[in-house]
Amino acid sequence: MNLQDTLDIKYMEMALDLAKRGMGTVAPNPMVGAVIVKNNIILGKGWHVQPGRPHAEPNAIADCIETCEDATIYVTLEPCCHTNKRTPPCTNAILQNKFKRVVIATLDPNPNVAGNGVKILEGAGIEVTVGVLKDESQKLNEIFFKNILTKKPYVHLKMAQTLDGKLSTMSGDSKWITDENARTLVHQMRLQYDAVMVGRNTLNNDNPSLNIRMGIDSKDKVPYRIVVGNIRKIDFNTKIFTDEHTNRTIVLTSIEDYQNASDEKVQLIKDKKIQIIFTSIKDDKVDIEEGLNKLGDLGITSILVEGGGALASSLLERKLIDKATVFIAPKIIGSGISYFNQSFEKMSEALNFNNVEIKKLGNQAMFELYPE
Amino acid sequence: MNLQDTLDIKYMEMALDLAKRGMGTVAPNPMVGAVIVKNNIILGKGWHVQPGRPHAEPNAIADCIETCEDATIYVTLEPCCHTNKRTPPCTNAILQNKFKRVVIATLDPNPNVAGNGVKILEGAGIEVTVGVLKDESQKLNEIFFKNILTKKPYVHLKMAQTLDGKLSTMSGDSKWITDENARTLVHQMRLQYDAVMVGRNTLNNDNPSLNIRMGIDSKDKVPYRIVVGNIRKIDFNTKIFTDEHTNRTIVLTSIEDYQNASDEKVQLIKDKKIQIIFTSIKDDKVDIEEGLNKLGDLGITSILVEGGGALASSLLERKLIDKATVFIAPKIIGSGISYFNQSFEKMSEALNFNNVEIKKLGNQAMFELYPE
Repeated sequence: MNLQDTLDIKYMEMALDLAKRGMGTVAPNPMVGAVIVKNNIILGKGWHVQPGRPHAEPNAIADCIETCEDATIYVTLEPCCHTNKRTPPCTNAILQNKFKRVVIATLDPNPNVAGNGVKILEGAGIEVTVGVLKDESQKLNEIFFKNILTKKPYVHLKMAQTLDGKLSTMSGDSKWITDENARTLVHQMRLQYDAVMVGRNTLNNDNPSLNIRMGIDSKDKVPYRIVVGNIRKIDFNTKIFTDEHTNRTIVLTSIEDYQNASDEKVQLIKDKKIQIIFTSIKDDKVDIEEGLNKLGDLGITSILVEGGGALASSLLERKLIDKATVFIAPKIIGSGISYFNQSFEKMSEALNFNNVEIKKLGNQAMFELYPE
Repeated sequence: MNLQDTLDIKYMEMALDLAKRGMGTVAPNPMVGAVIVKNNIILGKGWHVQPGRPHAEPNAIADCIETCEDATIYVTLEPCCHTNKRTPPCTNAILQNKFKRVVIATLDPNPNVAGNGVKILEGAGIEVTVGVLKDESQKLNEIFFKNILTKKPYVHLKMAQTLDGKLSTMSGDSKWITDENARTLVHQMRLQYDAVMVGRNTLNNDNPSLNIRMGIDSKDKVPYRIVVGNIRKIDFNTKIFTDEHTNRTIVLTSIEDYQNASDEKVQLIKDKKIQIIFTSIKDDKVDIEEGLNKLGDLGITSILVEGGGALASSLLERKLIDKATVFIAPKIIGSGISYFNQSFEKMSEALNFNNVEIKKLGNQAMFELYPE
């Protein structure tokens, strides 16, 4: 690797770190960072803060301590070149400011860009390098990469389990499988998702707040709180139906169950501005795939699913998971609630995962994995 | 930390590495290594190779390129001072060779030594330092430390499981949960144990060889292969009953089951020199605690238990495990064989483990843990 390659990586790492500052506020846009460098001096830095506000490139240009002429701009995603949005194309800004070179981590999968940004820059005689820290940039924006192409929400299943694979005792007690280290990380994860989803049993048993706490700066974000199940069996005395954010609470249930819900519940739904999404019933359960599609239609780009076993099993069986994070505590509980109800004859039929990352977190393991 | 402390650690690390060369051959003795140093020059190195042969200290002295007078000897275990064994006391050798200083990782728990070695050395005016890399040395000889005091075998439970805590499918298929990385490590583990133990179902389903392969130097060691269960239901066509090492095969079963075994099996047991250990029946199963005690009486100091679920559950329920190693593969299988059959109301009642180590091994996690 020559010196320029090493420097390219160094500046792109910086741009990726800047991109992460948009975490929790940029959705449905991607997190993007930019660094402007000339003669090995950093002239300016920028990142995308939220939709409707400037992209990383103009922010970095505005931050510059002198002219960008002949400078290099490092940007974690291909500069945009289209006008069907609220801000002007970043390719224009790059041309106007007479950059010599543009280094891009990855192309923008948005069909309106997808290589067209690079073409415009190269056509204007600018030197363009694509692919520096490509994997890191794509992983940072894995939600955006799925969502922009499919318009379906990115589904991230998070579970905390005992060594022997149980989410709780048979009676539903799960406090606490994991320690504060793991729970803090979950609050950090919530910041990155539009919505947090649980099944009816988990809501009724645990009465979770599903907000961002544990010392994490929420950036004033309250994720949508989605509960899945028969509305007649959902406990409406739980926090997400009684706190000050009930207009961020969504119930996924069937129209039949809704029709049989108590008058009291129906009134509460109106009063508290709770949103109901109706789905068909499939195999005696809410049709979760249909529900996810309808959530996508509402503009929800990403969902962190936090259990329980029945909801996880539905998602795993129907292959609706994009990513899973599993915390494993050094405890053995014996009988308890599992999270995958299918049965196979052969081990070779098991659900397989790859791109596995394993970290030690206190006394726990954190598995991060992607379905094969 | 001053320079001498840093050097002490460096030489003790070297002595620990030397000690490990005795792995697989020293039992029931501990692994011990020694390094002799003078003016920062290493004069000699040694380790204990096998029972009846010299200890690490005389081996290191014999290795010296010049006299040990005024030198320091680093030794991973307190030098012995008693004569009720085949080799002379190491304290004598240290005194005769006029060492100036002795650095010891940990005291010998053997009641015949247990600080007396240090007393003799100090009484003769030698400077003695105890405790350098104490934890590392005790962990290296964790089997010896239990066995010398209790005369019971050290029990290490090894399991390979799916993410959702299953050892096999319901029909018993477990090939392969883990990959070659994990399986190679298991063969390395077998070298460290006097015996490998499995339950009847695992033997019948998997027909394991329970020997040392996968490119590991077995040092000509064939561990005892122990199978636990009703002898009438054990498949005698399996490898451990038909290979050339059947005199290393032991069956733990009840006398009632043995009396009802087929004449053919009884004849085969005689012909093949298979050993039978009789235990009582407890809760309809072989009384595993009684069995372990009887194996200890036979001189077996350590057992690697390789499943299956029923045997693991008995050992966990009765708190007979000293250590567990659990390989977790990124697979979800759903229904399958678990390994702990108790049931608790509260998560706080779970079996807890500590001193947890977690390593990534290929796509798998390796948990190493000790019961609380």
